[in-house]
Amino acid sequence: MADMKVNGTPTRAIWRVEAQPVVEIIDQTALPHHYRTLTLATLEDAAHAIRSMQVRGAPLIGATAAYGVALAMQRQGDDAALTAAVATLGATRPTAVNLHWALVRIEAHLRPLPAAARSDAAWREAAAIADEDVAQNRAIGQHGLELFRALAQKRGRLDIMTHCNAGWLATVDHGTALSPVYAAFEAGIDVRVWVSETRPRNQGLLTAWELKQHGVPHTVIADNAAGLLLMRGEVDAVIVGADRIAANGDVANKVGTYLKALAAKEAGVPFHVAAPRSTLDFACPSGEAIPIEEREGDELRVVNGFDGSIRQLPADEAVANPAFDVSPARFVSAIITERGHCAPGALRALYPEA
Amino acid sequence: MADMKVNGTPTRAIWRVEAQPVVEIIDQTALPHHYRTLTLATLEDAAHAIRSMQVRGAPLIGATAAYGVALAMQRQGDDAALTAAVATLGATRPTAVNLHWALVRIEAHLRPLPAAARSDAAWREAAAIADEDVAQNRAIGQHGLELFRALAQKRGRLDIMTHCNAGWLATVDHGTALSPVYAAFEAGIDVRVWVSETRPRNQGLLTAWELKQHGVPHTVIADNAAGLLLMRGEVDAVIVGADRIAANGDVANKVGTYLKALAAKEAGVPFHVAAPRSTLDFACPSGEAIPIEEREGDELRVVNGFDGSIRQLPADEAVANPAFDVSPARFVSAIITERGHCAPGALRALYPEA
Repeated sequence: MADMKVNGTPTRAIWRVEAQPVVEIIDQTALPHHYRTLTLATLEDAAHAIRSMQVRGAPLIGATAAYGVALAMQRQGDDAALTAAVATLGATRPTAVNLHWALVRIEAHLRPLPAAARSDAAWREAAAIADEDVAQNRAIGQHGLELFRALAQKRGRLDIMTHCNAGWLATVDHGTALSPVYAAFEAGIDVRVWVSETRPRNQGLLTAWELKQHGVPHTVIADNAAGLLLMRGEVDAVIVGADRIAANGDVANKVGTYLKALAAKEAGVPFHVAAPRSTLDFACPSGEAIPIEEREGDELRVVNGFDGSIRQLPADEAVANPAFDVSPARFVSAIITERGHCAPGALRALYPEA
Repeated sequence: MADMKVNGTPTRAIWRVEAQPVVEIIDQTALPHHYRTLTLATLEDAAHAIRSMQVRGAPLIGATAAYGVALAMQRQGDDAALTAAVATLGATRPTAVNLHWALVRIEAHLRPLPAAARSDAAWREAAAIADEDVAQNRAIGQHGLELFRALAQKRGRLDIMTHCNAGWLATVDHGTALSPVYAAFEAGIDVRVWVSETRPRNQGLLTAWELKQHGVPHTVIADNAAGLLLMRGEVDAVIVGADRIAANGDVANKVGTYLKALAAKEAGVPFHVAAPRSTLDFACPSGEAIPIEEREGDELRVVNGFDGSIRQLPADEAVANPAFDVSPARFVSAIITERGHCAPGALRALYPEA
């Protein structure tokens, strides 16, 4: 499959500037209204990018954390600096487990090395994490395509619903939930996507933007419309990404995912979750053990658009803003990983070494 | 129960200006960002107010239509004018049945009268429809309070979730879904309300505004957060209004209601629907026969705030914008009307004459 493009140019969601000790990202707080890139030169730049959601999406958060360690090691490679970098990055966001997976991996790789060797090794390991993410997402696309082909053959077209953005913007490249959509599109299937706005941060607009870059037909809906469309039979499958999947197959993902899982089940429509190994948390027994991030209320009170932002609720209006919810395994039809797809209860069989 | 107030002054959502042939409304497209009233002087003013959602909420749409006929009769009372007024107003919005109920009632009242008598009679009948709406909503408040008292006694407080605005702004006064909430508040129950934003038109902000006017504690959430809060046990009951209730108890209401009904059922939380007689459509066998209005895409693409509006999606982005959905009767715990409350399948027993 071709790499993902912005205005025709292949572009990843994060990349090291060649031969320089800095990383560039696409500023996702400005999308879809403005396309701009940002340079991350320090540990604090990387932590801020994750915290403020300049980068978001579980796999991309993981890759950014790995590059954040490299940025820290570039300045100072001793044990204290390594410990501090991992601690700072680990505290940025609580729900996506890919963050911790990447930090554990890069720390384990660097810790045995002499301080002077850590910078080069960190850059190499971060690049490896990024490249593996791309390869895994490509594989997810092919495994998901198998499921989609069977659905498309029935009706001659394929109407997919997604939530939030689990496209290439949420990963290093290709995406998780959208990878099978891109694979279906390139395989010539008449695929269309229902893109749900995803309040309060409107990541659905990122999904619309990246689908448009690739010419994939799509329609934006309010999150509230998902139930009606499913009830009316206008959706062949729902596919979403994940921020953490517990050992029992419970799925934490962007708040509102659970409502789509319920409505899909009620309508008899498959509800698929696509995620790489780094999203699986075999140490977490079930969804109840997954911490749910509560974010600041201004995410609801203030809305961004093409000409800046607008306040829709007064600053003193009480707001609750949980960023994720949990879809119990019994609502999940299949989990699609780089190794294949399986029922949520069969994850262990796909990863016997875990 | 006291009448509803704006800045301490008792205010209805629609009223005739004393001794003048005009009606005033609160411009609900400006709320909660700006409070202003509008004068309706002609049939076309009334039709525009309904179409553009300057007035919204099924019972208020009905009352506005009745006043619209009075405005038409004021100018010309012949048969053709009456027919045209009913046709114009009847075509404004398809889903809320109160509109047709009010038009059928006022037309049946006026048709036998001589043309010269129709203007005075229309004003009287419109006022009667408005006053009855207020009395019915008061009764809904008391019947709903019975259900709420039982819940509040268990925990010593009461956390209610609602969707859209079925408060006094959606009626002539007191509201439907919020009438029991106001009754509970006045009865000294520690009641708090989860107010869901209700994209795309954000009628939840109207709910927050009117609850604030009365000092009822409340918290605004993204529509997407409803499932998590219900799953966590943070909601004692969901209560919503309705735009049309079919004979079998299926409920058409603001899009997104169905997702809350699903999540309430899954959590074992009561899901109540409050509506007056005028919302019941015994001629409609089930939800499948209820027309679902599709509204223009700019309702999603453009967001209103305190300083005007902002475009969040480009004008050429494809959008689907169904305004309502249907919650099947099996998800409804009780329907609360001015006559009492009953299981959705028992509506006929409450209205044996229907």
